[in-house]
Amino acid sequence: MPSEFDFIQSLRQHSQLPGVVVGIGDDCAVLEPLAQRWLVTTDLLTEGVDFLLAEATPEAIGKKAMGVNLSDIAAMAGVPKFAVVAVALPRHPPGGMTTRALADRLDAGVREMAARFGVAIVGGDTNTWDQGLVISITLIGESTARGPVLRSGAKLDDAIFVTGPLGGSLLGRHLSPEPRVREALALHQIVDLHAMIDISDGLTADLMHILEESHFGADLDSMSIPIHPDAVLRSAITGQTPLHHALHDGEDFELIFTVSQADAEKLTGQFPRIGTITDTGLTLDGQPLTPRGWVHEV
Amino acid sequence: MPSEFDFIQSLRQHSQLPGVVVGIGDDCAVLEPLAQRWLVTTDLLTEGVDFLLAEATPEAIGKKAMGVNLSDIAAMAGVPKFAVVAVALPRHPPGGMTTRALADRLDAGVREMAARFGVAIVGGDTNTWDQGLVISITLIGESTARGPVLRSGAKLDDAIFVTGPLGGSLLGRHLSPEPRVREALALHQIVDLHAMIDISDGLTADLMHILEESHFGADLDSMSIPIHPDAVLRSAITGQTPLHHALHDGEDFELIFTVSQADAEKLTGQFPRIGTITDTGLTLDGQPLTPRGWVHEV
Repeated sequence: MPSEFDFIQSLRQHSQLPGVVVGIGDDCAVLEPLAQRWLVTTDLLTEGVDFLLAEATPEAIGKKAMGVNLSDIAAMAGVPKFAVVAVALPRHPPGGMTTRALADRLDAGVREMAARFGVAIVGGDTNTWDQGLVISITLIGESTARGPVLRSGAKLDDAIFVTGPLGGSLLGRHLSPEPRVREALALHQIVDLHAMIDISDGLTADLMHILEESHFGADLDSMSIPIHPDAVLRSAITGQTPLHHALHDGEDFELIFTVSQADAEKLTGQFPRIGTITDTGLTLDGQPLTPRGWVHEV
Repeated sequence: MPSEFDFIQSLRQHSQLPGVVVGIGDDCAVLEPLAQRWLVTTDLLTEGVDFLLAEATPEAIGKKAMGVNLSDIAAMAGVPKFAVVAVALPRHPPGGMTTRALADRLDAGVREMAARFGVAIVGGDTNTWDQGLVISITLIGESTARGPVLRSGAKLDDAIFVTGPLGGSLLGRHLSPEPRVREALALHQIVDLHAMIDISDGLTADLMHILEESHFGADLDSMSIPIHPDAVLRSAITGQTPLHHALHDGEDFELIFTVSQADAEKLTGQFPRIGTITDTGLTLDGQPLTPRGWVHEV
């Protein structure tokens, strides 16, 4: 089985050219020769994997496609600015919808989300074919004067926070991400954000990206991890604990971030503090914890 | 039947935000708040429409995907700089190829083309699904100090040039575009380029974009239109004249550009001069000419 990381891994070495401050390997690329530094991110969603056209409305798919990109900009504490949108539309959408109606409704979802975050859609490419719906968005953002927040900046004894409750997004929340753009920008002014990432693969899997890039470990506190009501509902279906879903489910699109102990005090009562950066390894209440779905990047 | 222009048309009005000098409607978007102005373009290719995986090598598909984007940057006389690459890979490619091998070979084609033009690949998204291959590339380029060359700048009595022979690309040339990036930059230094576009839909269809945006007409000289040997070969198959194929076939990826009569003299013998900008209408040797596949944009 091919790993989806391979292609990116292979591209990574080719992003080291002048002007590229951060190439592949973080939430966004950071480009140098700009007023501030600019951020670029891309996400492609496919029918049957990221959404079911028979279940999700086209508007929701459009919103999700823009939302996951906004979440990547949020994860750098950047300001989203410009997007290009490329789609492959099925000639015969399910449920008797016309291709035109599908395009219009998808478009409406993309635009609604873009408008909410002040994003200008500056380009696009529309294609029709005989297969499933694909939507690919590239989002360009600006980093603030404080610079982009990378995955690699966590420090020993940092406090680990998360922006909201986790788990069970599969019940429907995964289709309506609330990208934490404003939260990230506000945090970036109040505290010195050491490392940050958005949760797409799951709390443990995405925290591991911070730990790998920062060369540290983490201990999580099970009692502090905010559990979404959907995690409880999922739990009733799967037989796993709600905590299990909060730890391992993906597509929450909340942010994980780390700050110094001093800065952590400023955030008390505002965001749940879920753990501490340690020397090595990932633990839960001091016991070894295996991140689900984690592929170790060599 | 939905027109592929509708989606873009609908997005166009949403690209008018501060910082967007040119949004949707030209070959690239032009973004303001940069050292020079920056150019952004996106193209998505689908199996069965833009290529047949059973016929084209994955390397060629990768090269084409990067090439069509490079051609858009060339059409603005820009310098290509950064790209992001998103793919949807079939879980079971035709011909017994593994998904991994397909990804690697596609990647090799993308990288080869990027390297040839000094492009840094700064991001990507790899997905696997049960349907056909899709590759979507967004390319960011820098405009030179002379500024980007738009479609809207043609002037009455301008000479119309093309950078190379046309027609019959379907025989295979459409898979190995030679983006005219260097030619465009050289021309941009020698003459004052009034309007420029790359030929993706066909000479007449793409020239019409210049005419519509510039609010002029054109008269083409049938004897001066450079005919590619492939147009002659196609002619033998289709029964159409070679000139017909040169006028109407798509995916040549040569550039059409217009310059003043004075500048035209500097280019004599270097590029074929194929016509003149007139007050209105499109004619060939003075006779009305209908652009093939042309959809009038209201």
